[in-house]
Amino acid sequence: MPISRIAVGSPAEASQPDTIKAAVAEFISMLIFVFAGEGSGMAFAKLTGGGGSTPAGLISASIAHAFALFVAVSVGANISGGHVNPAVTFGAFVGGHISLFKSILYWIAQLLGSVVACLLLKFATGGLETSAFALSSGVTAWNAVIFEIVMTFGLVYTVYATAVDPKKGDIGTIAPIAIGFIVGANILAVEPLPVRQ
Amino acid sequence: MPISRIAVGSPAEASQPDTIKAAVAEFISMLIFVFAGEGSGMAFAKLTGGGGSTPAGLISASIAHAFALFVAVSVGANISGGHVNPAVTFGAFVGGHISLFKSILYWIAQLLGSVVACLLLKFATGGLETSAFALSSGVTAWNAVIFEIVMTFGLVYTVYATAVDPKKGDIGTIAPIAIGFIVGANILAVEPLPVRQ
Amino acid sequence: MPISRIAVGSPAEASQPDTIKAAVAEFISMLIFVFAGEGSGMAFAKLTGGGGSTPAGLISASIAHAFALFVAVSVGANISGGHVNPAVTFGAFVGGHISLFKSILYWIAQLLGSVVACLLLKFATGGLETSAFALSSGVTAWNAVIFEIVMTFGLVYTVYATAVDPKKGDIGTIAPIAIGFIVGANILAVEPLPVRQ
Amino acid sequence: MPISRIAVGSPAEASQPDTIKAAVAEFISMLIFVFAGEGSGMAFAKLTGGGGSTPAGLISASIAHAFALFVAVSVGANISGGHVNPAVTFGAFVGGHISLFKSILYWIAQLLGSVVACLLLKFATGGLETSAFALSSGVTAWNAVIFEIVMTFGLVYTVYATAVDPKKGDIGTIAPIAIGFIVGANILAVEPLPVRQ
Repeated sequence: MPISRIAVGSPAEASQPDTIKAAVAEFISMLIFVFAGEGSGMAFAKLTGGGGSTPAGLISASIAHAFALFVAVSVGANISGGHVNPAVTFGAFVGGHISLFKSILYWIAQLLGSVVACLLLKFATGGLETSAFALSSGVTAWNAVIFEIVMTFGLVYTVYATAVDPKKGDIGTIAPIAIGFIVGANILAVEPLPVRQ
Repeated sequence: MPISRIAVGSPAEASQPDTIKAAVAEFISMLIFVFAGEGSGMAFAKLTGGGGSTPAGLISASIAHAFALFVAVSVGANISGGHVNPAVTFGAFVGGHISLFKSILYWIAQLLGSVVACLLLKFATGGLETSAFALSSGVTAWNAVIFEIVMTFGLVYTVYATAVDPKKGDIGTIAPIAIGFIVGANILAVEPLPVRQ
Repeated sequence: MPISRIAVGSPAEASQPDTIKAAVAEFISMLIFVFAGEGSGMAFAKLTGGGGSTPAGLISASIAHAFALFVAVSVGANISGGHVNPAVTFGAFVGGHISLFKSILYWIAQLLGSVVACLLLKFATGGLETSAFALSSGVTAWNAVIFEIVMTFGLVYTVYATAVDPKKGDIGTIAPIAIGFIVGANILAVEPLPVRQ
Repeated sequence: MPISRIAVGSPAEASQPDTIKAAVAEFISMLIFVFAGEGSGMAFAKLTGGGGSTPAGLISASIAHAFALFVAVSVGANISGGHVNPAVTFGAFVGGHISLFKSILYWIAQLLGSVVACLLLKFATGGLETSAFALSSGVTAWNAVIFEIVMTFGLVYTVYATAVDPKKGDIGTIAPIAIGFIVGANILAVEPLPVRQ
């Protein structure tokens, strides 16, 4: 991953059909992922009267995120690379796989996808609040930072090792499953934090 | 997906061995999917005395639909394309991948598969009712329409991006898993609506 | 699947290294599958004081069988074909894929694998009973027969369409997952019957 | 798997870039696996006030280990072989696939990965204890030994049949999933023992 391969790119890229197609794919993938992930949390909160986390809720969140992220990466893989996460886009930029301008387009598309997914959920549920994130009692900001660092590292490392690495071989076929499932596994581990990565 | 590729086909198709084989495959795939999906809902209702949705019931429905749709798509993939859903057949028709006559045959086969699966379940359980769909309180028809649109869009988009797209590459190998799991993920999100897509 | 391809074979086959290797592989695959599948039921019965079925118990049984059968088929696939079920062996025999003598060897190996798995579980748990199968109240023998027919048909059809069919293509790669998961899905549907297929 | 292929290797290996890269990959894979696996147990214990095993807890542990081990094997597969378990490294050594010196490096890397994962979890949760292993009442050491033998055999056999066997063919593509899921299935079977394999 030579840092020297970082590329800036030019605004002209933004009007190329491939770049636009990739940004649209990123937008749709993010919408699919957030709709199922965030929606599963809202459905669970409604079923349990907004009560706290329970083992069944954790399992539900884990499966919803794992399945949805796997699919979101799959459907985007051949068009945009299937990042579905600003941190992955940043990693691809640092690794020299996409230019700065394209990264910024991806970030905008990802942000819009999340927002539209939440608006759709809000309208579809007749106005339920989408959840905000707060720290559990006894969990300091520093604790949370450790969790986020380990989980984001795990995700970005999985993307690199299974999808970006030119020596990936057959593993590339199941890369989207691995990327989705590492998030599903980590959600079961970091219950005290409502995490969305 | 050029719209101009829409094809009407001719009734003569209906007597070709390949077309008949494809319609039979669609029938069997639909039967397999509905038997497990609908059956899991009936088993859960029986276990809990017909009580309302619970987190465990949602997880059970999600896994049953995800696993069964994945398998139903896999077993049909090389014969009929593994649509297992009238909306997917409609999408394939609009995209010019199958003719109108073949689409109608598929729809009939899918309908028959669902009906036979429900009859088998009713007989096998000694007469339990298969469930009808109703809206939860506080969910208007418009809310439901939004959910159905987003979920059907997610499903059809996944089918196109992973199974139909000629540039799908390695992703094609895991396409049936992606198609099954996006439905599993969305079931966790739309709890208020008993959804069967 | 021409019926005319049925082969009898000869007892001499039983002393060929490949046949013996295949029978041993069938034995080990069956042991792996029954150990996890039956063991998950015993663990659940112990945790809940032997109480009746619950949603969590169904989910646990579904996942244990789906994961274990998938692995059992995978590890046997290149040696014995990964049948892990007498009905699949019978189907392969009727389809002319293996001879009668080899089928009988497979059946003996599968039976021994199940027995050894149960003995290991009994010893490992300090003498817990492995579960016998009984019909739930309100379920007649005829109801049960329907369930068994549909589930066995689903399993054998999945094996044929994803693993045996020469036109299976890329789907062959994920065949063991499909074979395991159709059983997992059906377990969620047939709660009233403790099924082990 | 000729035993005669056992190799000792030399300490000089330890300074070769490939060997060091492999040991680092083993370290990261182990960290990813233990973080999610051990973390899921800690999260569950916190949610239920440290109460005993429950069906939901078993399912949570099963999914966390299955998903995380699958990913840990995937990300290491092309660099270190993705052992993520001292027993697998030992099996590979006995089978002559890696030298003794490399095995020792792997064991050290695996040990360090586990320790760092536990330290991160301890810090991230604000000092929760990571769990130690104890036998349930009514389970003797000999019972536990049987469980460990069967489970380790199942894991090592799965690694050999799906990832190491030169005749593995297409199954190699899904080998990491099989390796992760056999552990997930067995966790559901051996509830009385807090197992981490």
